[in-house]
Amino acid sequence: MSKRYEEAGFKPPEFSAFFSDLPSNDFNTLFQLLPPIADPGVSMEEYLAAKGHRSYFAAAVPGSFYKRLFPCRSINLFHSAFSLHWLSQVPDCVVDKQSTAYNEGRVFIHGANEGTASAYKKQFQSDLSGFLRSRAQEMMSGGSMFLVCLGRTSVDPTDQGGAGLLFGTHFQDAWNDLVLESSGSSGHPLVRLCVGNMIKEWQVGRPKCLTSLGLITSEKRDNFNIPVYAPSIQDFREVVEANGSFTINKLEVFKGGSPLVVNQPDDEAEVGRALANSCRSVAGVLIDAHIGEELSKELFLRVEHKGTSHAKEVLEQIQFFHIVASLSFA
Amino acid sequence: MSKRYEEAGFKPPEFSAFFSDLPSNDFNTLFQLLPPIADPGVSMEEYLAAKGHRSYFAAAVPGSFYKRLFPCRSINLFHSAFSLHWLSQVPDCVVDKQSTAYNEGRVFIHGANEGTASAYKKQFQSDLSGFLRSRAQEMMSGGSMFLVCLGRTSVDPTDQGGAGLLFGTHFQDAWNDLVLESSGSSGHPLVRLCVGNMIKEWQVGRPKCLTSLGLITSEKRDNFNIPVYAPSIQDFREVVEANGSFTINKLEVFKGGSPLVVNQPDDEAEVGRALANSCRSVAGVLIDAHIGEELSKELFLRVEHKGTSHAKEVLEQIQFFHIVASLSFA
Repeated sequence: MSKRYEEAGFKPPEFSAFFSDLPSNDFNTLFQLLPPIADPGVSMEEYLAAKGHRSYFAAAVPGSFYKRLFPCRSINLFHSAFSLHWLSQVPDCVVDKQSTAYNEGRVFIHGANEGTASAYKKQFQSDLSGFLRSRAQEMMSGGSMFLVCLGRTSVDPTDQGGAGLLFGTHFQDAWNDLVLESSGSSGHPLVRLCVGNMIKEWQVGRPKCLTSLGLITSEKRDNFNIPVYAPSIQDFREVVEANGSFTINKLEVFKGGSPLVVNQPDDEAEVGRALANSCRSVAGVLIDAHIGEELSKELFLRVEHKGTSHAKEVLEQIQFFHIVASLSFA
Repeated sequence: MSKRYEEAGFKPPEFSAFFSDLPSNDFNTLFQLLPPIADPGVSMEEYLAAKGHRSYFAAAVPGSFYKRLFPCRSINLFHSAFSLHWLSQVPDCVVDKQSTAYNEGRVFIHGANEGTASAYKKQFQSDLSGFLRSRAQEMMSGGSMFLVCLGRTSVDPTDQGGAGLLFGTHFQDAWNDLVLESSGSSGHPLVRLCVGNMIKEWQVGRPKCLTSLGLITSEKRDNFNIPVYAPSIQDFREVVEANGSFTINKLEVFKGGSPLVVNQPDDEAEVGRALANSCRSVAGVLIDAHIGEELSKELFLRVEHKGTSHAKEVLEQIQFFHIVASLSFA
């Protein structure tokens, strides 16, 4: 870019990078990891060559990218990596017992009923639509956008591919275990904890835990849903075309990422740990908030055990597809 | 501003605020304190009226404002509040024993020798010059700058006014106490700590502590200097004029701020606490880093006691002057 400017007889441009994320994220760590800016007294070549320095101005922008983040016509290039599959929220109807979209018995859209799937798809398309509408206002004429997010190859949204295998199989079974586990079946400390709570609740006149003998109620499980949707090419294309502000240069789905375990694929315990860690890194914070850290730890222990027992199958089946889009602002 | 645009038949403008500070500052807390942005679908009037919402885009910019922070010609208005009296560093010569600027026996410029004072002044002017040079590149034509920082009314830089009384009297005496206190004089735990260190140092063959019987050596004190300079109007004006990019609309020094203690001015212990807290809020982090938290606690305890003993005098004398500058970009 700098070369092109110089060859045309212009001074090379200055670059600004805006890092955007939700306000609750840790921007302090990002700032401390940024190398210092190179001395602006030097030429752009020296700038770019200066090792351990950055050759761009940096800023952080807290907010939801499904809404406006920048002033009108102020940005040349947008890039989003592995974020657009995160829904802005679980659709309300998915946790509404009266709704046909109620995701009873499940914690993810994978393998869910048609109503749930359609609510998830609608949420994804409404969110992506908000993203494109906002960026179309913020982008300068001639701007470009490069987007990467989780995707799926199936037409059916209840087959969520890699994300589905991650959150719709062993992870789902681990939640079911928490619901089904009887308090009389073992002397496990968490069971004792539950009994302790039952006694406390009994004392304050709310013997809730007595109706269900599990570590959590089935309602508690059903109220939790992973707010992720891996779109198909078609899901994605429909929104871009409806928005109308961007030309599609490229829109593809491709197999990406490395396998779940690279170094010790034959070590079954390692596969189990990797499965649990993958689930936790994606959704751990949400699960802690929903059932507390103790039960969350218990849940992931079960995911790990199930992953270890089905190591070969897990390793063969879990693979992620990505949607990659290159769009131009008309 | 929005009204003026609308009256002229234009759409009201959008506003962006960039909050800048050193990268080590806590931007996460700032982001969590920002109200959510108002729905951009509403009109600017509704925007501005929306309570509990902000009507501007927000971003954070980590870096030193004595260097470049923003791209060329990208900012309309700069404002800096109570930061420009912070030097980018203590001048090297001020802690160089061989230099005539060595600030022997003191931890601040207040009451220091001429060499030290001149080094501090030079550092301030070089820093402010870097600030103005950077902003002159970043500012759009017709831009404005409103600056407020600590200032002094005296021509003599070794009379630092309020800052001088804060860091050049009881605070200075507290440092001297740490140097002078004999390890034989009391059974205070910190003294025992020092004796413990002496034994450790003796064991590793470096019996440094034996030459000085204080809690810290005089060198340790002399290597600490508060990197603050309260400029006079003249100090400030010289730099703005030498830079030449800005027209001075207003450059004044005025008495500002509230007294050290507002609610219980007759409570001597309260005055002592307020004095220690003021010193700690300004320089606590630097002192912790220089002598450790234990000795720092000890230092501020002494500041508090001295403030309590001289409460009336402290309350009468400590007042702060501020330099206020309104500059236009030519």
